[in-house]
Amino acid sequence: MIALRKTRRARGAEMQEIPIPDINPNEVLIKIQAASLCGTDVHIYQWDDWAQSRVQQVPYTVGHETTGIVVKKGSMVTRVEEGDAVSVETHIPCGHCKQCLTGQMHVCQNLKILGVDTNGAFADYLAVPEIVVWKNDPSVPPEYMSIQEPLGNAVHATLIEPVHGKSVAILGDGPVGLFSAGVARASGATQIFMTGIEPFRLNIGKQMGVDRIINVANENAVQIIKDATDGLGVDVVLEMSGVASAMKDGIAMLRRGGRYCFFGIFKDNLVPTPLNDIIFNGGRFYGINGRLMFDTWFTVSNLLASKRLDVRPVVTHKLPLANFEEAFELMIESPKKAGKIVMFPNGTMANGKH
Amino acid sequence: MIALRKTRRARGAEMQEIPIPDINPNEVLIKIQAASLCGTDVHIYQWDDWAQSRVQQVPYTVGHETTGIVVKKGSMVTRVEEGDAVSVETHIPCGHCKQCLTGQMHVCQNLKILGVDTNGAFADYLAVPEIVVWKNDPSVPPEYMSIQEPLGNAVHATLIEPVHGKSVAILGDGPVGLFSAGVARASGATQIFMTGIEPFRLNIGKQMGVDRIINVANENAVQIIKDATDGLGVDVVLEMSGVASAMKDGIAMLRRGGRYCFFGIFKDNLVPTPLNDIIFNGGRFYGINGRLMFDTWFTVSNLLASKRLDVRPVVTHKLPLANFEEAFELMIESPKKAGKIVMFPNGTMANGKH
Amino acid sequence: MIALRKTRRARGAEMQEIPIPDINPNEVLIKIQAASLCGTDVHIYQWDDWAQSRVQQVPYTVGHETTGIVVKKGSMVTRVEEGDAVSVETHIPCGHCKQCLTGQMHVCQNLKILGVDTNGAFADYLAVPEIVVWKNDPSVPPEYMSIQEPLGNAVHATLIEPVHGKSVAILGDGPVGLFSAGVARASGATQIFMTGIEPFRLNIGKQMGVDRIINVANENAVQIIKDATDGLGVDVVLEMSGVASAMKDGIAMLRRGGRYCFFGIFKDNLVPTPLNDIIFNGGRFYGINGRLMFDTWFTVSNLLASKRLDVRPVVTHKLPLANFEEAFELMIESPKKAGKIVMFPNGTMANGKH
Amino acid sequence: MIALRKTRRARGAEMQEIPIPDINPNEVLIKIQAASLCGTDVHIYQWDDWAQSRVQQVPYTVGHETTGIVVKKGSMVTRVEEGDAVSVETHIPCGHCKQCLTGQMHVCQNLKILGVDTNGAFADYLAVPEIVVWKNDPSVPPEYMSIQEPLGNAVHATLIEPVHGKSVAILGDGPVGLFSAGVARASGATQIFMTGIEPFRLNIGKQMGVDRIINVANENAVQIIKDATDGLGVDVVLEMSGVASAMKDGIAMLRRGGRYCFFGIFKDNLVPTPLNDIIFNGGRFYGINGRLMFDTWFTVSNLLASKRLDVRPVVTHKLPLANFEEAFELMIESPKKAGKIVMFPNGTMANGKH
Repeated sequence: MIALRKTRRARGAEMQEIPIPDINPNEVLIKIQAASLCGTDVHIYQWDDWAQSRVQQVPYTVGHETTGIVVKKGSMVTRVEEGDAVSVETHIPCGHCKQCLTGQMHVCQNLKILGVDTNGAFADYLAVPEIVVWKNDPSVPPEYMSIQEPLGNAVHATLIEPVHGKSVAILGDGPVGLFSAGVARASGATQIFMTGIEPFRLNIGKQMGVDRIINVANENAVQIIKDATDGLGVDVVLEMSGVASAMKDGIAMLRRGGRYCFFGIFKDNLVPTPLNDIIFNGGRFYGINGRLMFDTWFTVSNLLASKRLDVRPVVTHKLPLANFEEAFELMIESPKKAGKIVMFPNGTMANGKH
Repeated sequence: MIALRKTRRARGAEMQEIPIPDINPNEVLIKIQAASLCGTDVHIYQWDDWAQSRVQQVPYTVGHETTGIVVKKGSMVTRVEEGDAVSVETHIPCGHCKQCLTGQMHVCQNLKILGVDTNGAFADYLAVPEIVVWKNDPSVPPEYMSIQEPLGNAVHATLIEPVHGKSVAILGDGPVGLFSAGVARASGATQIFMTGIEPFRLNIGKQMGVDRIINVANENAVQIIKDATDGLGVDVVLEMSGVASAMKDGIAMLRRGGRYCFFGIFKDNLVPTPLNDIIFNGGRFYGINGRLMFDTWFTVSNLLASKRLDVRPVVTHKLPLANFEEAFELMIESPKKAGKIVMFPNGTMANGKH
Repeated sequence: MIALRKTRRARGAEMQEIPIPDINPNEVLIKIQAASLCGTDVHIYQWDDWAQSRVQQVPYTVGHETTGIVVKKGSMVTRVEEGDAVSVETHIPCGHCKQCLTGQMHVCQNLKILGVDTNGAFADYLAVPEIVVWKNDPSVPPEYMSIQEPLGNAVHATLIEPVHGKSVAILGDGPVGLFSAGVARASGATQIFMTGIEPFRLNIGKQMGVDRIINVANENAVQIIKDATDGLGVDVVLEMSGVASAMKDGIAMLRRGGRYCFFGIFKDNLVPTPLNDIIFNGGRFYGINGRLMFDTWFTVSNLLASKRLDVRPVVTHKLPLANFEEAFELMIESPKKAGKIVMFPNGTMANGKH
Repeated sequence: MIALRKTRRARGAEMQEIPIPDINPNEVLIKIQAASLCGTDVHIYQWDDWAQSRVQQVPYTVGHETTGIVVKKGSMVTRVEEGDAVSVETHIPCGHCKQCLTGQMHVCQNLKILGVDTNGAFADYLAVPEIVVWKNDPSVPPEYMSIQEPLGNAVHATLIEPVHGKSVAILGDGPVGLFSAGVARASGATQIFMTGIEPFRLNIGKQMGVDRIINVANENAVQIIKDATDGLGVDVVLEMSGVASAMKDGIAMLRRGGRYCFFGIFKDNLVPTPLNDIIFNGGRFYGINGRLMFDTWFTVSNLLASKRLDVRPVVTHKLPLANFEEAFELMIESPKKAGKIVMFPNGTMANGKH
């Protein structure tokens, strides 16, 4: 089969012919229909500091946001049948640590990440353990089933506490921020702000339901939000930029006793943070990692299947997997002209079959 | 001033001229703009068994769903100013019991109910303690500010746990059930069922966002819901009918580990209830009484002001308070041809001023 | 091996020689060290109405509260090793329904119960799927590891919401009620009441930390509790009797906005229940079934291993499995003279090896 | 009356004769029985950077942890009567902001702090609004009623999520840390660690129920805790030191998906914080400020009155208010030889009447 592989500990990736993987009794083999591009893939492609320290071994197949059809299942598998349309949770848990045994397998003590620690989804076929398989509603097209993984980040961050009747500020205009706007809107948030610096993406934010777009290149987010909330600040801040100044603005715009989610990864681990402000705020601060397995997936799936949430504005590009270099360039270029990019292996794009 | 009074311990009510009430230092005087009719008012009007045992003394002024303008405030009042548009929480708490001191004043140990235990809102003026005053967004018309109290019941019942991504069955097609459909829809419920027997009201339910209307006069609600949920049952049941058969259907249609709200009052207190089914279900069952003070009011107010929730289909009638007999008849007649009825004292309807 | 079997659809049970069970790749074989007696076992032994309608097929081995040593594990098993001391969750989940995928496998849609739907633990060996295996702290003696299953009911019911600083009324003096008293005491409940009719067991309640024992044969529980709580009622009621009058007393003694757990199974499913009182109470009512898998087990295990909870007063009898008839009679006789009874197969009692 | 006043914007404080305060209709006048010393009082006494920027005006009376008898009440006061023993919540809320209206008045938008923004409790008499008055159980001696305020910090931080069955690490050996150990122990925490550098206080920690004292002057807290938890880390970290290195150790010792409370104020607001570790941890982080009004007070009061919690080891010194200089010196000196210090105005110490 064809797979997009990281073959060397250096910038880039290349298409290779490799054997279709074997499966264990607790695994399934999936014929990939679509796989979308994540910032993590770009880090690995660019081989930046983070990628160099995080990736343990090459060569391996990258990619982790995906969907496909089960074509083979191991003898112990009970959740799915051959022919089922499925997506895949990226967090591969051990199944026996304390977290796995108490509803927190997304932060398993022995976690592996698909497409980082294992062979991933930019390929014709993917083998994964049953524990990460999610059965899709076949009525939803593959490009929207593929993006359930990052949409799941948005659902997990946005809805870790309910947002109905709340004001929400989303810091950052990347795909997860844009999805979060749609999730907040579909779930009853009554005042939605988004900050960012990319006009192309902020405009998508507006389509996803943001009430007030704030371009921090020329607007003061804290002031605008304080003014719009009678000086109180917002009930909820979703920090999705990984930028220290935005993070601090977020704490300044959070109302006392509010809720704050840390999701965007920072360039450096140690970030000067106004901890006394956090203490006096008296609020709740969450580290957001992955998705609840599988509460989040049910919400994602139901929001999509019921059409309460329309993610089409965010999915701006569909390309054959063969065009991966174009896809990576779209992700890297500045200013941004892409939202989420979905790629199609198995020649499905070429044939127009999807 | 003019007030609609219960003057005798018998069926009916009558308009009387009485003095404008005085206020204490911790009270406000409200000039009523609109007041809507509740099932409780109908019980008192019809003087049924419940009313006979519940109402302590006559004469008094009935009515409790209302809105108006503060025209006078006591010296200790700090929440509102003269000229503010306000609504009124019906549950008048003591302020010093354990419930009042721990965020549960809606179930205060010494609770009084406006328009039942005290003089109510079907009048030109109303005096209430500051603790029950809610400041309205003046951009919302009075007929929708008046219905915030029953809409608050709907919000409290529907959102006592979040509904995003959930399936919800609303049992009963009265105004609170209809509001609940809108609240569930606005807050991300992805599959909404409503059961009832009144075609006029079930049709409003459809306009409020119900996905599947079930007329239990000729349809089997449990079967339809089981079929529509892969045999699982719904995540959430809102029992808003006060009918024993519906209550039992509700338990049969609730998925294991689901959530059930008891809201509709039953004719008799003791109702044969499948308690073993409740135990084996392993779910959460709530008694719903009033509204959280004032979390619920913030949600109600924000849903209305943001236009995420449109309650216009439910408010079917607007009448001058003088036409109260017509209003009560609309509530009583069968089959029903009314949703929520809003009445206007102070001649505002006559003058077309509202 | 020797097993205590239900061989006929009639009263009684008998010891039989049967083969040691085979295991599947996802199963473990456990050599039983201890197995305790539950009310469910007594129902099956006595072959009452419930047992007749519930038990699908005979012959089979009864018993489900147990502990032992893993002597063989299937090839796919990763949680435990041969030689590990383990206990067993009685609720055998399917692993792929909505409940199983969202942290509620204890109320799995396709649940099987060990020792009711499958061969149980009153035997020399037991084969179970890995998903129900719990690894014990080997420092705790077998008789206390065996009772973790009913102690888990007590933990799940008592701690479904925290009890620190709360008043708690436990209705019923059976073993789970007695365990609940200890759990409530160890977890910070500050006023603990227990109602019952068995002096022997109520006295154990006192040893487990109950502040006020109420023998309802000659005391008025509602009055005593109202008096002891300034007329307010208790914060928490744990209904563990399955008796309708106690259930109703429980609702009468619950403070407004309190918490109530239904755990004791009623003789008939339909029980006249004061639903209007439940609604006006505005509280939270839970159906309690099983234990959270495996949050509850962690709490149980940690309470025992840390010696914060001492269950020795409740475990009143230790008998060889061969004495099963004596054990069942102790459970059945009235007035009661036993708490929890632990039995020992494999001749361990006889040899004094445990 | 006599009061300990901050008279100048400089180090120190002095006893002055001032008039007994008048009260408003919504206030009570309390004759002080006992008042304990807090770190905040020391900052103000020493007039450090924080105090200089925080204190708005002098002269005023300091002190805020207190208890006394109501000797006069305003006409609108309903919670207490003259003669009642009361304590006082330090957070004086406005009563009309969003936080005050939704159960978060401890982080009121317009919060004033007793003894910082208003005249405090180191005096013969104190006037406060009814909204902050807490009625005490008269069976508890004044020195333990006085310390309910800092004990309330401990209860709020420790029990913001339940601790039953959990492992808890308390970072810092000050009085609130010591109280937290007792609270955790009384509420079912099954493994309690405390870190610090003061042998005198760590020894009190042991008396309060800590399982493992860690003197970070010569022990590696992260390693010890990882070793004691099978490499997992603790379920709960209570950061009560306000020291950056301890804060970072706390994040390193927190298990994935755990709970962390920020309580200790840092010297500088901006602290380099491992935010990526927080994100990947996936846990819940709380800013802890004050106490829930009045849920926390109920828990505090019930733990003390029921004797489930014994705080006597922490209250190391009782002094007449006249000896305030000795008291401040005890707080300041290093190494520490004091826990909590309670002072007695009104000559009660001298007369031995308390």
